[in-house]
Amino acid sequence: MASRLLTEGIKSRVRRPSLLSKLTTINDVIESGFFKDGMRMGWSGFTGVGYPKITPNALADYVEKNNLQGKLKFDLYVGASTSAEVEDRWAKNGMIARRYPYQLGRVLRNEINKNHIKFADKHLSEFPLDLLSGYYTLEKKGNVMEKLDVAIVEATAITERGNIIPGASVGATPEIVQSASKIIIEVNTELPNFEGLHDITLGKFAPYKFPNLIQRVDDRIGTTYIPCDSEKVIAVIESKIPDHTSDSEPQDDTSHKIANLILELFEHEVTMGRLPPQLLPLQSGVGNIANAIIGGLADGPFTDVEVWTEVIQDTFLDFWEHHKLAFASATSVGFSPAGFKRFYEMWNELKDRLVLRGQSVSNSPEIIRRLGVIAMNTPIEFDIYSHANSTHVCGTKMLNGIGGSADFLRNSKLSIIHTPSTRPTKKDPIGISCVVPMCSHIDHTEHDLDILVTEQGLADVRGLSPIERAHLIINKCAHPEYRPILNDYLNIAEKECMNIGAAHEPHMLDKVFKMHSNVLSEKNTMRIDSW
Amino acid sequence: MASRLLTEGIKSRVRRPSLLSKLTTINDVIESGFFKDGMRMGWSGFTGVGYPKITPNALADYVEKNNLQGKLKFDLYVGASTSAEVEDRWAKNGMIARRYPYQLGRVLRNEINKNHIKFADKHLSEFPLDLLSGYYTLEKKGNVMEKLDVAIVEATAITERGNIIPGASVGATPEIVQSASKIIIEVNTELPNFEGLHDITLGKFAPYKFPNLIQRVDDRIGTTYIPCDSEKVIAVIESKIPDHTSDSEPQDDTSHKIANLILELFEHEVTMGRLPPQLLPLQSGVGNIANAIIGGLADGPFTDVEVWTEVIQDTFLDFWEHHKLAFASATSVGFSPAGFKRFYEMWNELKDRLVLRGQSVSNSPEIIRRLGVIAMNTPIEFDIYSHANSTHVCGTKMLNGIGGSADFLRNSKLSIIHTPSTRPTKKDPIGISCVVPMCSHIDHTEHDLDILVTEQGLADVRGLSPIERAHLIINKCAHPEYRPILNDYLNIAEKECMNIGAAHEPHMLDKVFKMHSNVLSEKNTMRIDSW
Repeated sequence: MASRLLTEGIKSRVRRPSLLSKLTTINDVIESGFFKDGMRMGWSGFTGVGYPKITPNALADYVEKNNLQGKLKFDLYVGASTSAEVEDRWAKNGMIARRYPYQLGRVLRNEINKNHIKFADKHLSEFPLDLLSGYYTLEKKGNVMEKLDVAIVEATAITERGNIIPGASVGATPEIVQSASKIIIEVNTELPNFEGLHDITLGKFAPYKFPNLIQRVDDRIGTTYIPCDSEKVIAVIESKIPDHTSDSEPQDDTSHKIANLILELFEHEVTMGRLPPQLLPLQSGVGNIANAIIGGLADGPFTDVEVWTEVIQDTFLDFWEHHKLAFASATSVGFSPAGFKRFYEMWNELKDRLVLRGQSVSNSPEIIRRLGVIAMNTPIEFDIYSHANSTHVCGTKMLNGIGGSADFLRNSKLSIIHTPSTRPTKKDPIGISCVVPMCSHIDHTEHDLDILVTEQGLADVRGLSPIERAHLIINKCAHPEYRPILNDYLNIAEKECMNIGAAHEPHMLDKVFKMHSNVLSEKNTMRIDSW
Repeated sequence: MASRLLTEGIKSRVRRPSLLSKLTTINDVIESGFFKDGMRMGWSGFTGVGYPKITPNALADYVEKNNLQGKLKFDLYVGASTSAEVEDRWAKNGMIARRYPYQLGRVLRNEINKNHIKFADKHLSEFPLDLLSGYYTLEKKGNVMEKLDVAIVEATAITERGNIIPGASVGATPEIVQSASKIIIEVNTELPNFEGLHDITLGKFAPYKFPNLIQRVDDRIGTTYIPCDSEKVIAVIESKIPDHTSDSEPQDDTSHKIANLILELFEHEVTMGRLPPQLLPLQSGVGNIANAIIGGLADGPFTDVEVWTEVIQDTFLDFWEHHKLAFASATSVGFSPAGFKRFYEMWNELKDRLVLRGQSVSNSPEIIRRLGVIAMNTPIEFDIYSHANSTHVCGTKMLNGIGGSADFLRNSKLSIIHTPSTRPTKKDPIGISCVVPMCSHIDHTEHDLDILVTEQGLADVRGLSPIERAHLIINKCAHPEYRPILNDYLNIAEKECMNIGAAHEPHMLDKVFKMHSNVLSEKNTMRIDSW
């Protein structure tokens, strides 16, 4: 170790001397020939925060400088998405063979949709357990260890015993660290030390599992660090690069209308005695509708509200500041740059009102069902019988992955999906109806969804039969331009299916995707002339 | 109460004097005018056992004698299916307005598929909680009580405190009893007293829920009875009618081939260290493939095997008798008449190696995931990307309902679906391929299935991308006659989607159900000439 690497920053963050002796530069590691084509690699990170910033960029530099494009390929496993910039650069350089289980980034997505990069999505609660179970390394014997050749992990500190204090996300890092033969730790001295914000537990294996004892969103049952075997650490590297996040999506008229409908629903459910006055713990997805809902709650009538979710976004800061949000549990804080600044300013107040857990806990079916979570997510489209597509545009093109949407929508006490009723195409400002006869890809089934909302209205389908649901969904949620088209479909399909005694969920299988095919044609709109 | 009703049988089974004083006949209850059109009604029962035998038949007699067909209609909620004969008679007499969440019976199914009877299926683990939460009674205020006008429940005994000892099933009876304003108990004195076989817990409501403490299949955490408020009991009736079950489905060459492939997989997983030598607790569906698998295990190399499932069938008796099955937990024992005779003969040996729980526990995601259950179920069809259809034939015609298949397949450690590769139509002995381009209805998504099996072979899709899965599934599982048809589909779809950069999961949306449409046409086969 060159002594110039031993900065004041790194000395204050790395409290285990034996790991300080592993302080090095990533170029030294690369030049040692450690990275080999075909390696399986795990990174820390979740929704664009807490990912390693030094190693991936240095490896990309190395490939570009040495014209190794397509010759140094890795299987890449991360809890969810990291930085689109970095992953896109890797995708462009042909450095990714496989990427599981969630992704973000234009180039990466294009390569996945050309089948140049193998990708499969997976419920985020299950991914870390499948990794530990060896489901991504079927040719290897044994149960737990050394599934990955290397884990590259960002820390904001290292404890006396060599354990890792993560930054703004936990994700699958605990399991990735356990599964790796070798570990590279990037200690970020530019970020604050996040010590105390995390609650880390490690998955146990059946038949040796115990009940997870979390009963309240603020329960802590684990450690403040990710356990790490120092002997596996091959390099400690200082990083001074902050998380590269984007500004939060602006709320618009549509998202405000949707948010208001959902707040009205909450008031109704409290009145009817099906929700307590403080509601039940909320899960809220990402995007402008989620922002509008949380923004609405920050100014709304409910107090002592709790949150059990995946990602905390900017509007949660208002929610706390207005003393409406009592406590939040998540697996990452994905603020905008301005949001992070505010977050650090509010740190002393917030640190006891927030906890970050691994995604196998934040998304655990066991806990989601126990707490009675209210889940809210935005799909690509939903259908008249209340199935939803969260992943594949027109059934074939992967957007990002299923993420945690199914963990929450299946297991929540009240499951809500919300989307604008239409989206524009190049030729028609309302060319895509988000309410369709049948979803072109199904991620959430009719058995999982209670409430469907667009800016047009809210359909509460609890207890309804499929045909009852269809009438309600078309007339409450579809855009007025699409209502007659969808009602026609339902009526013709019902008549045809009734004739053959097969009308529990009427469909015309030969025409069911006609609206989708029409939008893919040069007409570029789902507004078809007839069925 | 007429003293002639006070038989020795009933005196030995009803241990609470105040309930003996409610002993009556069902005709007296009917003539009192208690049953009214539009009532919401819950029955005990699960998969054809433990359902009330007196009241439903007496009500059908009453309707038939008084020409009340279609004028005395009920909403009927039962944990799962009861007796097809009784429900078919009710369906024929127009006595069912709604029927949730699972059904069996030719007439009932036809009425559902003509939309004369409203039906919706639901994960069996969730149904009891939705009922208690008021999701089937949205117009009523309040949280728990009096959702149903009456519960009609079979007991094999009543305790000193008036609590109910069920018979061969628990299902949703605990929650149905809690949700009812009035209760009618049919005490079956022909069946043995099942006291001690059950472990009953009652669902708590978020935010007042606790971890379920079950950690082993044989853990007992509840009571041996279903709590029941005697003041709500309006009638106690003696029943002497046994459960009307059918003979178990014969195993054939196809089911043996499938069972052998699965047993080979288990041995491989043990060798690779991904399963312990005694396997993990098994869930097994109903039908001849399930019978063949359990039959194979009864003669197989694994000992101390445990079972965590919904329904115990005849072949489990061999499994116990051969000292291979250590313990089984289920929500019902659905033996054939000959199987029940054997079961009662083995009672003393079996009573400590079996427990029956409510379906909210037997199918609980929390416990299934904790125990690491191996789930095995038969779908109607699965597709090349590993989605499965368990409910709707050709996308529109309801078969029985989703039952517990998704509770198990989503949450299990290893999820397996198995089906013959083809089924016959009237015109073609292999007219239906159970491997299709896209399922015509999706109940289980690609994120939920690990292993797909037909008599042709086994596809292990863990860790694979969709296109990798498709090649494997077609070439391992499809019937040789359908392999070229499916490979053509995949190749053409891949080419078309690649052209527009949308080939993560290639499909031709305008032709995707061509095989289904062809089987519905006069050709009556999925063997199409070309795409």
